[in-house]
Amino acid sequence: MNEHVLVLLRHGESEWNRENLFTGWTDVELSDTGKEEARQAGRLLKKEGYDFDICYTSYLKRAIHTLNLALEEMDREWLPVVKTWKLNERHYGALQGLNKSQTAAKYGEEQVKIWRRSYDVQPPALSAEDARNPAGQIPYRGIPGDQLPLSESLKETVARAVPYFEDEIRPRLLQGERVLIAAHGNSLRALVMHLEHLSRERITNLNLPTGIPLVYHLGENLEVLHKEYLGDTAAIEAKMQAVANQGKIR
Amino acid sequence: MNEHVLVLLRHGESEWNRENLFTGWTDVELSDTGKEEARQAGRLLKKEGYDFDICYTSYLKRAIHTLNLALEEMDREWLPVVKTWKLNERHYGALQGLNKSQTAAKYGEEQVKIWRRSYDVQPPALSAEDARNPAGQIPYRGIPGDQLPLSESLKETVARAVPYFEDEIRPRLLQGERVLIAAHGNSLRALVMHLEHLSRERITNLNLPTGIPLVYHLGENLEVLHKEYLGDTAAIEAKMQAVANQGKIR
Repeated sequence: MNEHVLVLLRHGESEWNRENLFTGWTDVELSDTGKEEARQAGRLLKKEGYDFDICYTSYLKRAIHTLNLALEEMDREWLPVVKTWKLNERHYGALQGLNKSQTAAKYGEEQVKIWRRSYDVQPPALSAEDARNPAGQIPYRGIPGDQLPLSESLKETVARAVPYFEDEIRPRLLQGERVLIAAHGNSLRALVMHLEHLSRERITNLNLPTGIPLVYHLGENLEVLHKEYLGDTAAIEAKMQAVANQGKIR
Repeated sequence: MNEHVLVLLRHGESEWNRENLFTGWTDVELSDTGKEEARQAGRLLKKEGYDFDICYTSYLKRAIHTLNLALEEMDREWLPVVKTWKLNERHYGALQGLNKSQTAAKYGEEQVKIWRRSYDVQPPALSAEDARNPAGQIPYRGIPGDQLPLSESLKETVARAVPYFEDEIRPRLLQGERVLIAAHGNSLRALVMHLEHLSRERITNLNLPTGIPLVYHLGENLEVLHKEYLGDTAAIEAKMQAVANQGKIR
């Protein structure tokens, strides 16, 4: 009865994931592997009998395409989709475009781990004049520049993603709508932290696998009754480990 | 100044267009040709410098995919997209799934022309028990059954598409938003009739080419200042003729 269903889906491999580059708000496309991961997620959701009333995604095409491909496999293209920059990946500042292994060789694995997995340490920021400053980019033209980041810690990602969830998504869930969110490693970690009341330490060590639907069954106040990843357990474990290894020197 | 921009885009060739079947609300996919038409439309819009603030499409995947592919070529995946059944193709009733040439051979070209191009003659209706009755289909689950058609004349398509335009799209245009609508031959003819104040006779003889952006420059009360099809004139003429020929016996 009063059980609410929320599914989180992290986009599959992107062109830059494959090259092990820091991506952040850089709007890169899914790789062919990432597209297949997205389709597989859609097939799994359909096979397991999940259906939705509304979907959310970010402004970044790797998440939008993940959602579109999953919906195609589910024959649910007609579902309403809300796109918001509040679900964008964490902004990686001046690290965007740098190779993770090279950055580790230069600054040390520990510093890269701090930038990637600390809760409140920002990577070096973009300068305001940088062409990558979101305030000068077309998708963000309607948003006051002082709301847009030049770099973000996970804490700052939480500070935009969680209020969006509370204001826009929570009321939908409470009305009985089934919600699918296709987004990014860190914007989804922000939501997981919030839903599960995780500490900073716990969330720092949590890796979400790519392209694997994470299903939450929530109670009448959205407390977590049950959660599960859909799919093959060994494959899920391997994917979580792959994400954890990205910042190593190799 | 105070000029408003509205672009109408009819989806490209679908699997059933290619087989010359009456499609209506049957949710068939674009053919490879249709996908390329959609991409080409996006490239043309980008090349000619058009940009948008909001997009509308129907509940049918051939229109949704046309929009998605065009937006991909324009690098505008992040634009808001509103999906509505009010922009669906005209419901073709019991003709859905029948071959147009065979139907012409059986009922006569004139009868088929009447069903296809008259203003207020409905094709034979589906029975309420038919599995194709929209009232029993998942995409329409939230809509009162008595609002959903079992067959439609163009007049009835106008009666749902034009109020939607007036209520939802007109205010956006008047606020200065640039609007792209990706939809269907008949739902777009309804809008063209409305925008251009065409008579029943005029709209009956108007064929919109597939995959060709039709650009309206509108004045402060949305009166038409100028309209143009984007692209190669000879190709556009050939496409209009191809649509007009579909109901012939061959």
